[in-house]
Amino acid sequence: MKSPETAMKTILEAVSAGRLTPAAALGELRRRLPGEVSVPDALLDVDREARSGFPEAIYAAGKTPEQTVAIFQALKKANGRALATRCPAETLEALRKKVRGVRIDERSRTAVSLPSRKPAPRGCIAVLAAGTSDLPVADEAAVTLEFANVGVVRCSDVGVAGIHRLLGRLDTVRKADAVIVVAGMEGALPSVVGGLVAVPVIAVPTSVGYGASFGGIAALLGMLNSCAAGVTVVNIDNGFGAAVAAIRMINGRNA
Amino acid sequence: MKSPETAMKTILEAVSAGRLTPAAALGELRRRLPGEVSVPDALLDVDREARSGFPEAIYAAGKTPEQTVAIFQALKKANGRALATRCPAETLEALRKKVRGVRIDERSRTAVSLPSRKPAPRGCIAVLAAGTSDLPVADEAAVTLEFANVGVVRCSDVGVAGIHRLLGRLDTVRKADAVIVVAGMEGALPSVVGGLVAVPVIAVPTSVGYGASFGGIAALLGMLNSCAAGVTVVNIDNGFGAAVAAIRMINGRNA
Amino acid sequence: MKSPETAMKTILEAVSAGRLTPAAALGELRRRLPGEVSVPDALLDVDREARSGFPEAIYAAGKTPEQTVAIFQALKKANGRALATRCPAETLEALRKKVRGVRIDERSRTAVSLPSRKPAPRGCIAVLAAGTSDLPVADEAAVTLEFANVGVVRCSDVGVAGIHRLLGRLDTVRKADAVIVVAGMEGALPSVVGGLVAVPVIAVPTSVGYGASFGGIAALLGMLNSCAAGVTVVNIDNGFGAAVAAIRMINGRNA
Amino acid sequence: MKSPETAMKTILEAVSAGRLTPAAALGELRRRLPGEVSVPDALLDVDREARSGFPEAIYAAGKTPEQTVAIFQALKKANGRALATRCPAETLEALRKKVRGVRIDERSRTAVSLPSRKPAPRGCIAVLAAGTSDLPVADEAAVTLEFANVGVVRCSDVGVAGIHRLLGRLDTVRKADAVIVVAGMEGALPSVVGGLVAVPVIAVPTSVGYGASFGGIAALLGMLNSCAAGVTVVNIDNGFGAAVAAIRMINGRNA
Amino acid sequence: MKSPETAMKTILEAVSAGRLTPAAALGELRRRLPGEVSVPDALLDVDREARSGFPEAIYAAGKTPEQTVAIFQALKKANGRALATRCPAETLEALRKKVRGVRIDERSRTAVSLPSRKPAPRGCIAVLAAGTSDLPVADEAAVTLEFANVGVVRCSDVGVAGIHRLLGRLDTVRKADAVIVVAGMEGALPSVVGGLVAVPVIAVPTSVGYGASFGGIAALLGMLNSCAAGVTVVNIDNGFGAAVAAIRMINGRNA
Amino acid sequence: MKSPETAMKTILEAVSAGRLTPAAALGELRRRLPGEVSVPDALLDVDREARSGFPEAIYAAGKTPEQTVAIFQALKKANGRALATRCPAETLEALRKKVRGVRIDERSRTAVSLPSRKPAPRGCIAVLAAGTSDLPVADEAAVTLEFANVGVVRCSDVGVAGIHRLLGRLDTVRKADAVIVVAGMEGALPSVVGGLVAVPVIAVPTSVGYGASFGGIAALLGMLNSCAAGVTVVNIDNGFGAAVAAIRMINGRNA
Amino acid sequence: MKSPETAMKTILEAVSAGRLTPAAALGELRRRLPGEVSVPDALLDVDREARSGFPEAIYAAGKTPEQTVAIFQALKKANGRALATRCPAETLEALRKKVRGVRIDERSRTAVSLPSRKPAPRGCIAVLAAGTSDLPVADEAAVTLEFANVGVVRCSDVGVAGIHRLLGRLDTVRKADAVIVVAGMEGALPSVVGGLVAVPVIAVPTSVGYGASFGGIAALLGMLNSCAAGVTVVNIDNGFGAAVAAIRMINGRNA
Amino acid sequence: MKSPETAMKTILEAVSAGRLTPAAALGELRRRLPGEVSVPDALLDVDREARSGFPEAIYAAGKTPEQTVAIFQALKKANGRALATRCPAETLEALRKKVRGVRIDERSRTAVSLPSRKPAPRGCIAVLAAGTSDLPVADEAAVTLEFANVGVVRCSDVGVAGIHRLLGRLDTVRKADAVIVVAGMEGALPSVVGGLVAVPVIAVPTSVGYGASFGGIAALLGMLNSCAAGVTVVNIDNGFGAAVAAIRMINGRNA
Repeated sequence: MKSPETAMKTILEAVSAGRLTPAAALGELRRRLPGEVSVPDALLDVDREARSGFPEAIYAAGKTPEQTVAIFQALKKANGRALATRCPAETLEALRKKVRGVRIDERSRTAVSLPSRKPAPRGCIAVLAAGTSDLPVADEAAVTLEFANVGVVRCSDVGVAGIHRLLGRLDTVRKADAVIVVAGMEGALPSVVGGLVAVPVIAVPTSVGYGASFGGIAALLGMLNSCAAGVTVVNIDNGFGAAVAAIRMINGRNA
Repeated sequence: MKSPETAMKTILEAVSAGRLTPAAALGELRRRLPGEVSVPDALLDVDREARSGFPEAIYAAGKTPEQTVAIFQALKKANGRALATRCPAETLEALRKKVRGVRIDERSRTAVSLPSRKPAPRGCIAVLAAGTSDLPVADEAAVTLEFANVGVVRCSDVGVAGIHRLLGRLDTVRKADAVIVVAGMEGALPSVVGGLVAVPVIAVPTSVGYGASFGGIAALLGMLNSCAAGVTVVNIDNGFGAAVAAIRMINGRNA
Repeated sequence: MKSPETAMKTILEAVSAGRLTPAAALGELRRRLPGEVSVPDALLDVDREARSGFPEAIYAAGKTPEQTVAIFQALKKANGRALATRCPAETLEALRKKVRGVRIDERSRTAVSLPSRKPAPRGCIAVLAAGTSDLPVADEAAVTLEFANVGVVRCSDVGVAGIHRLLGRLDTVRKADAVIVVAGMEGALPSVVGGLVAVPVIAVPTSVGYGASFGGIAALLGMLNSCAAGVTVVNIDNGFGAAVAAIRMINGRNA
Repeated sequence: MKSPETAMKTILEAVSAGRLTPAAALGELRRRLPGEVSVPDALLDVDREARSGFPEAIYAAGKTPEQTVAIFQALKKANGRALATRCPAETLEALRKKVRGVRIDERSRTAVSLPSRKPAPRGCIAVLAAGTSDLPVADEAAVTLEFANVGVVRCSDVGVAGIHRLLGRLDTVRKADAVIVVAGMEGALPSVVGGLVAVPVIAVPTSVGYGASFGGIAALLGMLNSCAAGVTVVNIDNGFGAAVAAIRMINGRNA
Repeated sequence: MKSPETAMKTILEAVSAGRLTPAAALGELRRRLPGEVSVPDALLDVDREARSGFPEAIYAAGKTPEQTVAIFQALKKANGRALATRCPAETLEALRKKVRGVRIDERSRTAVSLPSRKPAPRGCIAVLAAGTSDLPVADEAAVTLEFANVGVVRCSDVGVAGIHRLLGRLDTVRKADAVIVVAGMEGALPSVVGGLVAVPVIAVPTSVGYGASFGGIAALLGMLNSCAAGVTVVNIDNGFGAAVAAIRMINGRNA
Repeated sequence: MKSPETAMKTILEAVSAGRLTPAAALGELRRRLPGEVSVPDALLDVDREARSGFPEAIYAAGKTPEQTVAIFQALKKANGRALATRCPAETLEALRKKVRGVRIDERSRTAVSLPSRKPAPRGCIAVLAAGTSDLPVADEAAVTLEFANVGVVRCSDVGVAGIHRLLGRLDTVRKADAVIVVAGMEGALPSVVGGLVAVPVIAVPTSVGYGASFGGIAALLGMLNSCAAGVTVVNIDNGFGAAVAAIRMINGRNA
Repeated sequence: MKSPETAMKTILEAVSAGRLTPAAALGELRRRLPGEVSVPDALLDVDREARSGFPEAIYAAGKTPEQTVAIFQALKKANGRALATRCPAETLEALRKKVRGVRIDERSRTAVSLPSRKPAPRGCIAVLAAGTSDLPVADEAAVTLEFANVGVVRCSDVGVAGIHRLLGRLDTVRKADAVIVVAGMEGALPSVVGGLVAVPVIAVPTSVGYGASFGGIAALLGMLNSCAAGVTVVNIDNGFGAAVAAIRMINGRNA
Repeated sequence: MKSPETAMKTILEAVSAGRLTPAAALGELRRRLPGEVSVPDALLDVDREARSGFPEAIYAAGKTPEQTVAIFQALKKANGRALATRCPAETLEALRKKVRGVRIDERSRTAVSLPSRKPAPRGCIAVLAAGTSDLPVADEAAVTLEFANVGVVRCSDVGVAGIHRLLGRLDTVRKADAVIVVAGMEGALPSVVGGLVAVPVIAVPTSVGYGASFGGIAALLGMLNSCAAGVTVVNIDNGFGAAVAAIRMINGRNA
């Protein structure tokens, strides 16, 4: 979305010069407003990638399979690709049946539709998972990064109870453009990583744990209070959001 | 406190044998009940060390200076020594004035009275503090251990943001009978220590931090959810309790 | 894990003396780093017992049956024994089918594999449960202790609403090396026990209760605020962690 | 407050019989409505004792000294006595200066005005306090009971860390009409008392404690989850409310 | 439970006088200790009614059907009657099949076994429910009162949104020995009742509601903060506990 | 409900004048009390519309299908129409079978019975939903408004991540009598709307979200803290309550 | 703020017709954007009243006295009047000194500047306060309403513990355009009022209370869960917001 | 910190070749370990910038003025510059007196010491503040960025209640490398910004607000649940952390 003032000025000058009728100018001005596409129960925001660097994706958790399929197909048509996260089992099934060429990832409950021809990946993000149980969230991040054509390197089961597993992989981690660190329970891994690397660290608390983990609150609070400066945090189990944050950084690097 | 049944049986046999009058037997039975000493506003539990391995100490936070001084002197008289924790400034001042030979520690807000002749210390506890701001709590633990004549080794400012500081002191830590780990903010240090040592690890969350540390809740939850197995936790800022837990372990070793 | 510096020095002297080639020395140095074994989705930490006194165990709650079986077998192979806790029903079933000689405990949802020949048990831990509903958690602690070859004595249904049940068993409890006290609802039992015994008391809050018990928060807070000094606490329903804490104490006694 | 219907019927018959004019009848009916007395900023509820068994008392915490003094004097005039609780220091000072014969209790921050001639006390309530720091709340309960001319017996510093102190006073406690149990920290005392006596047990959590006591939440939750059946609970630090609950019971006994 | 000292003294005098052998005296002393009966997984507290005015009841929520049936039958045998609350469906079914003459109440999920011959009821408790959805909790209270042979009067659906429904039943409510007020959502009913009656008011918050009712926390907090003095509170959905509290009051009246 | 005093005075004068017997007068006075209709388990409040502007509706979540059907039919008979919200699936099914002409809305889980002849709608309320997942709550509001014969205009999927969707519909929104804004996740939409329109804004937080949305708490807190002045809030997912609040405003406009 | 499209179209036609140069048209378009006035540290939103029905007011709590005075004077100059709420004592003092004709209300900590000539008040809002301690919040609402030239009627100290005080004032309350109900502690008053009046009810929880009132959370939750349909709620102690919500309703009536 | 293995290998080859004695090699190896400098009560981590891209800074909130001054001077000596945040007033005073050339910022409570000669700034970060009361936190971010020689552009008082203030500054914001968005109350600004820009958005919740803002929790939760994808969050009031996160991004761009 360019500055509205610049747009207005150019158009006004064209109107004044008679190169544009008021009706055509109104059409032009309207085109400057962000586009929207209407499907039943949804208004698609098809300018979102231009504006915010990442196209509208579908949060499928609170939607019926029919709603998700309809929006998925409309986004695929408008943007050439589509991504749905947090799909219930029946939604994954419906997408598999109704959308040709969709790729379903059961563990992260995501569905992706991409054009057949993909450009070379931009940049590289390290995705760390503290434990095996954190993998579905790390997978959601990886799927999202791949959807945006960003490179990914994975290190799994490197939690702080055996810190040598992380130390032995530091060289790899330090070469990434940013690090996504996925951890449940006490969520200590981002603090240790943040003290050892200079690149951005995006911490993702997970709901892995029980009792006083309170569905991920313990990990979330731990990460927000990290003694390693400059660690940022996203919502519990939000692998998608961490990936988009990393993509914003890649967007910036390539700007 | 011996089994009441064994005591009763012995005494009953003495009564039956005429070696003891009923009145004397009643006195004997009463002596078997734990002792208590009354001062205004308090009932002192002077058998507590015999029963639970550590004498009654004074939690001075909710008491008037007059109450604390009176109980301190009564405990000193009954037990030969006394300890008061969480003393407000005016209470420290009152103790300094009224109790001969009391040792005041301003930073941890404790007051101690000990007999002049001390036996050789038993065992050795490592007291780790993650940051400089955690020192008052670590000091409270150290004062309590010294009060119980237990050896102490200190490592301060060894938090996980610069994990090499801990790694360089591991040999010292591993030689201790138990480790008390004091940390605020995200409270990650006990997890890292717990993954590196085989001795008991007692974690003490502190209220150091701000915002979403919620006065130590973040650290407390982090420690309760430690991925390092077998880490135990005490209340926020409870250096005293951690020390008594360690003393119970030393009691056990020497039993 | 010995001090890295001592190891380095010895090896360097051997290199200097020509007794060791640089390549061999590098291998030696590497061997000094903690070992890891890779299975799909997991990096096993096979040095953990040497380092922290208890081998890696499997937290099966967030894992697929396939993941748990694979890790269980790899740990059994590497360590000669394996323990999985919080196994969903289908995981217990898969372990029963796939792992020869595994012992399943339905009530505590644990699976254990041990060598056929067991040494004499070390020490003795008392495991107290306040009510019948707390037994699964107490069982998890007992299974873990037995896995580590530590002696166990049990006292169940000894909650404070009928305090004579505890008082009648005090002699037994006092003889243990440490006491694990499992209680839900208001979690008062550890305070009463802590006031009556001198050995370490490890309190385990359970999620037994309803309404304002908030899934064990009431018991957890009660135990953290115990007026009996030196009681330490583990996570809600964490019988496993309490047992490992007790094992660390036994490790210390035998050190 | 009698049934409005019975009152209406009697009056209507009197009107019908010409024994009462409509205007007088309206006055009669109005008198049947609960009385109120207006002072600046307050509408006094001078029928409250008739209706609910205890006269209106003043919660002075959120009021200016001037407001409290004015309401205190108006209640004293209307009811013959007055009680103010939670008085800030300046309010106590203002009451002392402005109200003749007022009795100030500094520790519980209460002020009482009573007629010179008191009837013999009704019933007897045991007021137990777990620790010395809980005394201000226990005092508020005792002052309120005395204001209502109810007998009081006190047992202080009888917390569960030294349970023999309670056991030695059981005969006294069991003779009371009801027991008010005041405790902070983990709030375990009411559970133990509830298991040992058959009379009503009113639990008062206090804000005594620190860290995870969260200003009395730990004690409150402990008491609400008591495994001793039939323990009821009032707000944190609400000695006044516990006393009025006990008075309602005495009211019932004498009804 | 009589004072242990008085008991001891009498027995000791008999031993001294030769009227009792030491062995017999030991038996006597033991009998003075509260009785317990052991079943698998439970220690029954068969003196509880003598001590606390209400026999041990079974909290069936965390128990297997087998455990509940076994304890139910043992209590029935020891006490002549038995009560189980919060029974899962399969437990109710098992009790129906295994226990002759048991009375099952589906709505409150309780099971009761009583002797065929019942004495005349003692006293009368009013049980109010604010809404239809609160009835299962009110029923649990009523079943418990009837189990203890206490009279009950019910008023249902009298919530504050239509306050005339309560006002029209005040005469009935005021005649009760105590009032149990069951309410969910904002839990305002006990405050209104407490302002209108002089007898004890026991408030029971329920988990009826959604969103910010947080499973009954809103009602619980409302009741704890009641502006009507002397209202006491039990745990969320704890109709059983409210009934036992009322029974303690009846016990007191008849003492 | 007219002032009781005026009613009483008129009736008393009639009695005094002999135009009314006491018995008839008592009947008159009783009629002045709000009406109630009794069905099993419920006391219907059939004057509620006269008093509070909206007839009693059924909150079906905690009721059995039988209870809901019985109350629905009784309300329909007394008021000529009926509304049930939060109906479980089996309740919707029972209503469909038992109540002739009932209209079921599956998405909002509501059931409505209306007279066949409807007057012209009063006023117009804009119902905004931030996302597709918020539609069930917005639907509940719309059904309730239509039940009360109030006009509705809908704007769905206009959340702040693509704020142009809202800006393009401002003219419509500004023409409404009031705006109901339904939003989950961070709940920012009411703040933006509140800054752009002058009519009343009623914010409805939804439980749409995951992790730190805590079932709608994040949205609820966001709305309560709106920097746009004069935004009011109802309970999480309470589309019904928001609609009734809007109806109260329409009632006011037409008064 | 008119529809941007209509504005654009009119201006474009003028440009096309040569009645407006592009530069002048740009100025026109810019003027259509909402106005802002810059002072150090603030951007004043001087179109806010036109847009949202109430001018920008100053939330003085987090601002220095200098900042508040500067913004106050700038708003007074731009809008002809100004309002500051939650002023610290030193800010009130600074306003008194620096702003001619300012009216300070100490109890509600507000400052107001109004033009000397006031139009006749629009509408009438009833402001109810449950207790004397709630008056500062009720005053903030009243001051805000008067600032907006809206009529106010007050009823104070009409809480539910003596419900007759409210019932006796119902006729007055029912005549208002809307009712603001201010209450602390359990916050039950809005439920009772909501069941008795048909006009909008805006509930304001206050922080009056202690212990489990948690600074107003108990009252807030009570109001959000009101069983009286259509009660809306604002933030704790937010008398200002309740008043602006009422003003939005008056705006609507007069539209 | 280079890979330890590469370092080891190089050194070992030198030892093997006789170019290095074992003692010298040990020194070399030690130098490869991160450096630390000891002052009383602290172990400075002087390699931190090399490792994590930002030198150790001082969190002064929990330290005495003496501790902060000593650490500040030691860091200044080791690193050539120093930064202290959250300084109490007395600490700012002590730094002003003791540290030559220190720059104190009262509003953000920070102290900075920089070398006289500064390189040209790297990159540009936009720092947005929603309201005037959020400025101290935004200032802390700006001071930290300037300390790291990163360019800053500020936009203050651009909250969503007057959203045109933000829209008018979008061109500026979009040109930044990243955006730090500081907001209290409902914290909605980052969602709106995140929907309009493609660069990284770092959200900082502030404790500005009252009542249900709960010291910044409302804003924190709002930001964690942002419907704008890829917004990351730091702790409440943590302007410092947001700045370091932005610096990590700049580090990445320049890598």
